[in-house]
Amino acid sequence: MSEQEFRTEKDSIGTKNVPEDVYYGVQSLRAAENFHITGLNMHPEIINSLAYIKKAAAITNCEAGLLDKKIAQAIVKACDEILGGKLHEDFIVDPIQGGAGTSLNMNANEVIANRANEILGGKKGDYSIVNPNDHVNCGQSTNDVIPTAGKMTSLRLLKNLKKELMRLHTALEKKAEEFDGVIKMGRTQLQDAVPIRLGQEFKAYSVAVLRDIRRMDKAMDEMRTLNMGGTAVGTGLNADEAYLRRIVPNLSEISDMELVQAYDLIDSTQNLDPFVAVSGAVKACAVTLSKIANDLRLMSSGPRAGFGEINLPAKQNGSSIMPGKVNPVIPEVVNQVAFNVIGNDVTITMAAEAGQLELNAFEPIIFYCLFQSIDTLGYAVQTFVDNCVTGITANETRCRYFVENSVGIITAICPYVGYQKAAEIAKEAIKTGESVKKLIIEQGILTEEQMDEILDPVQMTEPGISGKEHLTD
Amino acid sequence: MSEQEFRTEKDSIGTKNVPEDVYYGVQSLRAAENFHITGLNMHPEIINSLAYIKKAAAITNCEAGLLDKKIAQAIVKACDEILGGKLHEDFIVDPIQGGAGTSLNMNANEVIANRANEILGGKKGDYSIVNPNDHVNCGQSTNDVIPTAGKMTSLRLLKNLKKELMRLHTALEKKAEEFDGVIKMGRTQLQDAVPIRLGQEFKAYSVAVLRDIRRMDKAMDEMRTLNMGGTAVGTGLNADEAYLRRIVPNLSEISDMELVQAYDLIDSTQNLDPFVAVSGAVKACAVTLSKIANDLRLMSSGPRAGFGEINLPAKQNGSSIMPGKVNPVIPEVVNQVAFNVIGNDVTITMAAEAGQLELNAFEPIIFYCLFQSIDTLGYAVQTFVDNCVTGITANETRCRYFVENSVGIITAICPYVGYQKAAEIAKEAIKTGESVKKLIIEQGILTEEQMDEILDPVQMTEPGISGKEHLTD
Amino acid sequence: MSEQEFRTEKDSIGTKNVPEDVYYGVQSLRAAENFHITGLNMHPEIINSLAYIKKAAAITNCEAGLLDKKIAQAIVKACDEILGGKLHEDFIVDPIQGGAGTSLNMNANEVIANRANEILGGKKGDYSIVNPNDHVNCGQSTNDVIPTAGKMTSLRLLKNLKKELMRLHTALEKKAEEFDGVIKMGRTQLQDAVPIRLGQEFKAYSVAVLRDIRRMDKAMDEMRTLNMGGTAVGTGLNADEAYLRRIVPNLSEISDMELVQAYDLIDSTQNLDPFVAVSGAVKACAVTLSKIANDLRLMSSGPRAGFGEINLPAKQNGSSIMPGKVNPVIPEVVNQVAFNVIGNDVTITMAAEAGQLELNAFEPIIFYCLFQSIDTLGYAVQTFVDNCVTGITANETRCRYFVENSVGIITAICPYVGYQKAAEIAKEAIKTGESVKKLIIEQGILTEEQMDEILDPVQMTEPGISGKEHLTD
Amino acid sequence: MSEQEFRTEKDSIGTKNVPEDVYYGVQSLRAAENFHITGLNMHPEIINSLAYIKKAAAITNCEAGLLDKKIAQAIVKACDEILGGKLHEDFIVDPIQGGAGTSLNMNANEVIANRANEILGGKKGDYSIVNPNDHVNCGQSTNDVIPTAGKMTSLRLLKNLKKELMRLHTALEKKAEEFDGVIKMGRTQLQDAVPIRLGQEFKAYSVAVLRDIRRMDKAMDEMRTLNMGGTAVGTGLNADEAYLRRIVPNLSEISDMELVQAYDLIDSTQNLDPFVAVSGAVKACAVTLSKIANDLRLMSSGPRAGFGEINLPAKQNGSSIMPGKVNPVIPEVVNQVAFNVIGNDVTITMAAEAGQLELNAFEPIIFYCLFQSIDTLGYAVQTFVDNCVTGITANETRCRYFVENSVGIITAICPYVGYQKAAEIAKEAIKTGESVKKLIIEQGILTEEQMDEILDPVQMTEPGISGKEHLTD
Repeated sequence: MSEQEFRTEKDSIGTKNVPEDVYYGVQSLRAAENFHITGLNMHPEIINSLAYIKKAAAITNCEAGLLDKKIAQAIVKACDEILGGKLHEDFIVDPIQGGAGTSLNMNANEVIANRANEILGGKKGDYSIVNPNDHVNCGQSTNDVIPTAGKMTSLRLLKNLKKELMRLHTALEKKAEEFDGVIKMGRTQLQDAVPIRLGQEFKAYSVAVLRDIRRMDKAMDEMRTLNMGGTAVGTGLNADEAYLRRIVPNLSEISDMELVQAYDLIDSTQNLDPFVAVSGAVKACAVTLSKIANDLRLMSSGPRAGFGEINLPAKQNGSSIMPGKVNPVIPEVVNQVAFNVIGNDVTITMAAEAGQLELNAFEPIIFYCLFQSIDTLGYAVQTFVDNCVTGITANETRCRYFVENSVGIITAICPYVGYQKAAEIAKEAIKTGESVKKLIIEQGILTEEQMDEILDPVQMTEPGISGKEHLTD
Repeated sequence: MSEQEFRTEKDSIGTKNVPEDVYYGVQSLRAAENFHITGLNMHPEIINSLAYIKKAAAITNCEAGLLDKKIAQAIVKACDEILGGKLHEDFIVDPIQGGAGTSLNMNANEVIANRANEILGGKKGDYSIVNPNDHVNCGQSTNDVIPTAGKMTSLRLLKNLKKELMRLHTALEKKAEEFDGVIKMGRTQLQDAVPIRLGQEFKAYSVAVLRDIRRMDKAMDEMRTLNMGGTAVGTGLNADEAYLRRIVPNLSEISDMELVQAYDLIDSTQNLDPFVAVSGAVKACAVTLSKIANDLRLMSSGPRAGFGEINLPAKQNGSSIMPGKVNPVIPEVVNQVAFNVIGNDVTITMAAEAGQLELNAFEPIIFYCLFQSIDTLGYAVQTFVDNCVTGITANETRCRYFVENSVGIITAICPYVGYQKAAEIAKEAIKTGESVKKLIIEQGILTEEQMDEILDPVQMTEPGISGKEHLTD
Repeated sequence: MSEQEFRTEKDSIGTKNVPEDVYYGVQSLRAAENFHITGLNMHPEIINSLAYIKKAAAITNCEAGLLDKKIAQAIVKACDEILGGKLHEDFIVDPIQGGAGTSLNMNANEVIANRANEILGGKKGDYSIVNPNDHVNCGQSTNDVIPTAGKMTSLRLLKNLKKELMRLHTALEKKAEEFDGVIKMGRTQLQDAVPIRLGQEFKAYSVAVLRDIRRMDKAMDEMRTLNMGGTAVGTGLNADEAYLRRIVPNLSEISDMELVQAYDLIDSTQNLDPFVAVSGAVKACAVTLSKIANDLRLMSSGPRAGFGEINLPAKQNGSSIMPGKVNPVIPEVVNQVAFNVIGNDVTITMAAEAGQLELNAFEPIIFYCLFQSIDTLGYAVQTFVDNCVTGITANETRCRYFVENSVGIITAICPYVGYQKAAEIAKEAIKTGESVKKLIIEQGILTEEQMDEILDPVQMTEPGISGKEHLTD
Repeated sequence: MSEQEFRTEKDSIGTKNVPEDVYYGVQSLRAAENFHITGLNMHPEIINSLAYIKKAAAITNCEAGLLDKKIAQAIVKACDEILGGKLHEDFIVDPIQGGAGTSLNMNANEVIANRANEILGGKKGDYSIVNPNDHVNCGQSTNDVIPTAGKMTSLRLLKNLKKELMRLHTALEKKAEEFDGVIKMGRTQLQDAVPIRLGQEFKAYSVAVLRDIRRMDKAMDEMRTLNMGGTAVGTGLNADEAYLRRIVPNLSEISDMELVQAYDLIDSTQNLDPFVAVSGAVKACAVTLSKIANDLRLMSSGPRAGFGEINLPAKQNGSSIMPGKVNPVIPEVVNQVAFNVIGNDVTITMAAEAGQLELNAFEPIIFYCLFQSIDTLGYAVQTFVDNCVTGITANETRCRYFVENSVGIITAICPYVGYQKAAEIAKEAIKTGESVKKLIIEQGILTEEQMDEILDPVQMTEPGISGKEHLTD
């Protein structure tokens, strides 16, 4: 194997050998050496966000007369290549990095500068043509670029999560229709309560998911306000006025996203509470999904020694030792992702709280956790829809059996006999194992016809004290 | 002292002696004995919320012909007494209680029934006139009453928090004006960065607080949707149709709050994600406040060996051993409350996730933590405004001194000499202790006049590369 | 009513009227006004801890010749009164307070000084005889007194929690014996797995609790190392050498607790990680207890449409609308307390992380949350033992029925026929509803005698492939 | 490119095409398709742990006469290849997976079975020679294998973390010696307090780290107790008695780790509190490290407008816009990792709490988070030592200047003049800007000689009221 060739680059710290054929430069390399934390790569979507930003900045600086047109065009071309999926492997910095994302911003600046240099006929590492700081980063600072990139990335990831949630909402609604005729015992505090229809339960799930979808919309709005133009601390030092006015509209157009410039760039540079708000919304969604997953696991418990009301599709062997066992593996992964989202929310909150003065330096961990939360929740919903919800079937007979033999239907008798008397009958039923209906008729409290009317299971699951009128005649 | 007299009450569990002169009954007493957890009382505002609900229910049931007018009137009168601050001491159940709040609901039912009995000439404990379950709880269930009470309470507490936040916003804005002329070093990652005006910093704080105020509005909207009428599991079993239609409008009118009935009562009965969303908003607010508190503590550090840029009002001796020491005790309490709010958010999230099937039985801990979060944050803001923010003064001379002697102003030179050259000058300044300005003039890079124009500190804190045009001529 | 009389006190901030008849002074009053956060009082046990500390300090200072004997004796007497339950109402500062506990320390200093003054014939507020700072606080600083008080308090509270956990361990062990003969289906992932005995389950619970008890011992050891003598920053400034040497042994003797002085007082003054470690142990315990509570709720679900394997004692009516319903209210409160402990752990962790340089100023919130965690968990265990665990009964017939009709016993056949074949039989059993035993005998795979031997339910719940030897003959 | 060739495999769910040349089988493939959550691979160390377990099981089963020697030898050889770094790419399941790790266990079983088949001359997918379930998994269940693998992995990762912490401890101790003569102001609540030596501060850090190292030892002990032999639910069903007795000793010997079998295998199978305890210890360590990182960032703040007491080594450019700026990037990454560890602890806690009955199905997320916490904290410490701590230098002159001009030294005067008088002098010094020393001498309170003795800065940083004796003569 031939030896690796190097070029020598220089920065404020000193000189350093950089592999000849790579697009990143000395600053990226130092950062990669300083931060070997996760061993993972940056999320591809934040690389794309940076390409949008650098492209918009080049165009805007060119419009403002601050950047030579040829240089601007070369930068734009390099950015377009990144957006086309190229050069991603030259983003070598660890997602968990010190320094408020300077390493990532410089990695982008260096990759784009070197590629732009090539485009203009220069060589990698010769920053006299296109300079990472003076040209690619012109009018910018890590402190406006990185929060902006984080917000744009969150927006795109949230859009995908929302799409998956919509699919889940629809899948649950379909099941709600399918199971509308399945009467079963409702349970509160895991104790038999009063009848409900399985379809009503799935409808409730679908409505809960819809509420989360709406929260995603609000969360996305938190991400549209950018501090681009604020530069180092939000005062816009070194940013030309024309640039300042045009950078966000240009970025919005180029990326095809609704974006606005913050009213107060200083606030927007130092405060990361919008990410806390977004994480909070994602977390609330995780709570809803985990609760649904828990319910499905409960209702499918058994098959014989559990509730056994529904069957989840068998997607893989459940056990290495217990033959034939099928486990609720898909809901279980939903739970686990939810737990992770909740833990990530704590991390994000702590990091946001730890900001100091003009900057919060802890964006990298916020982005790492938030992107993970949104992505993994999206994937979890995807498998939840495709490998679980759509294939659920009901054990209608067992469901009905539980209702007919329940003590819980005594609640429907309550308006006719009063709470105290009803409680006595219920206790006797539990003690003797007799049915509530039989006891009431035997004791001459109500006739069989009255009981049938009152206890119509479907009527019991819709509002209104049916038949009360003539009974009290 | 004479011996305590008792009356004997009976429920499904058996009979029990209840002190003769109390308004609570057997069920409250059992609950108080089962749950001695915090030793605290219920929040007075949730007691008031219950009074609103029971009053609205009595009126609505009466309208629907389900409750005798005389009984309804007695219940209404008892509720009004509670709303007037009476009978609160008869709410004896612990805020952390098992059972989805049944204990609290029954405590309200018993107190109101007994008081209504008295009003109608009966005796406490004689439930033949007004019955806690059949009359006071008519058409209701713990499972719709308690979530409703929790939401109404949150609404009122949030309103108060919002009011305090508005005061903070205003106080910060005033300081922003007062400090508008104070130029100082901005710091990123605690390192000297570029100049900023102290007033700009306070303006940024005030804007951040405004964002939280807006989130409070959204949070309040999450609390307006009620499941009243859903009874046990949201199917509305035993709730009369007329009652179901009128209960929320009546409650809204009686309590003078904007409230709506949930589209899906089953969902609204079992899912507590709205509380998670509210806690998330309160938490985001805590993050903002804690960050501001941290900044104030940093900027007032010293007085001599710290930043020393501002002075916080001295509100108490700072030390039992160090005479004359004054500590930032008010911001410190803001931090601590914020930490508690963040921890409470985890508790609330876990409790919401743990709901099962038709009900989440963990409302008591959610309410306990959420009310504490909102209340304590409100009190923290109150003392923050009154005992800290309004009394802050600036050390203008020291602030200006830092700017004039900083290396950070090199950033403003950067557009004229390029990043690389600027970095060299900065390094030399740090090494030699010389001022940046002197080095640049000495090296003939720019003239003194040019430097003065570029380094005008106020201009440096507003956008635009001032004077660039004629310099590049 | 006569008007309140006042005395005037003075501190560095200025003068202030203090009610004539109270033992607290100007500094306590300022703190009470600055911090109205929870509206609660300090935990009585931390007041007692302060009394131990002030008493030990007085004695030690006296031994070292730094404090007049008469004064020391008066201080000791005042402290003994506090330990006897008196003067607690004069501790008026809010548990959540800024300032690292200076307010609380000064509250103790003032109360003790004023009471000592009285004892010596002086008047409250006349600090010329016994001075809060110079005498009661002699050789001390808030920064060594408060962490020490927090650790001593934690130790006593943990001791109580440990006692309750021991009771739970014993109660569970008794149930393990009682239920040793009850065979039932074990479930993994809520799916029927293989048989287990109910007694084995309770034994496992008791063993898990024992592990937590051992962790409590380790947690207590974290609390024995004190920084008394370190004064302001751990360097021991103003602490006499003799005092420094004797204060901890004296405190240990007076309080009858095993306490040692930290090897590095500076570290011990600024770092609160021991409280994080203790909270972590309490949290691990909460996890164990919550899991047991969850299991009990699952096993007692029903009575008819759930698992119905055990019955929890009925401690109160379960519902305001559903007569006869009995809910698992005691386990539910255990869950809720566990959630709160977990949230508190986050608060404690954040507060510990936020310490800066020579001190962590956030002890008040750490103590507030930690004491609450330990106390409420102790109370939860107490009611768990007395109102739930000891009264649990088993539904032996239903338990056995589930085993005999389960598919899960196929696992025991697996060693004889291989996983693949066993899985086929299991699937057939589920599909047809037939019993596994019948299918195996019908298909001539094993004889009835062989099956009976293999499927002996009790043998199936003890290790070893029973009877394998002669079967493979 | 030639088309991919497939073999057909079959399991309980049906048949499926598996790429011809891979070692994993149908069950791994289904799991990989069901769970695309993180897109990452399993941690290599848990793959190694599984290889140890499968090897130990094969040997033990062979000893017990349950496994043919030839088969056992082939399994052992396959496991050794994995331990040699081979076959890892055939572990295709996502670390976040439903099903308690069955997917991972089956992935190991299939890879080992297929490789063993090859070794014995068979073909991949022909499980008639070596069967994944009947042979590789013989006597085992996912439910004992996976917790065991998790514990063994944690042990090895913790060992590495401990090693890095030892390096940090040593590096801090060295700095403590180096800085022992640097006198500086100690700060409490960020306010100037009393003098301390920089070396004392670093010594305190080193001692705090040592405490964490000791906690790591205890954490490791939590991981040594295994449930191997318990099989499905801890009853040891299908595990031969000889196997049960020998599996853990064999595993201990093969892996060269101290491991013991749990006293109660049922408890050990269902309860994951030991992982909560370990995470708690790692979290406490993260708190310590983050606090140290915070302090270093504070002390190095500036260089001119901050504390400026120490310099951190410049490891990379600090800013893309501010030339010459060097940021505390290494401490910042320590903070961020700490935040992540704290968030992960919440996830782990929730997952442990969510276990139900005989099993906790949420091990995958626990392992994912715990391994990440331990690994990233180790890497953070590594870069902290190498790129930060060892290169720290002190600004001795500035440090001393702060001491000499501080008001805080008034504390040392306190024992001679009383707290009240001392406070007055302090206030005057702050107000006038005069030095405390000058004021005291001017006012004739103490002589210059007395003052010099008292204020000897080094003496002020060691315990004992130096010189008190002759002053009070």
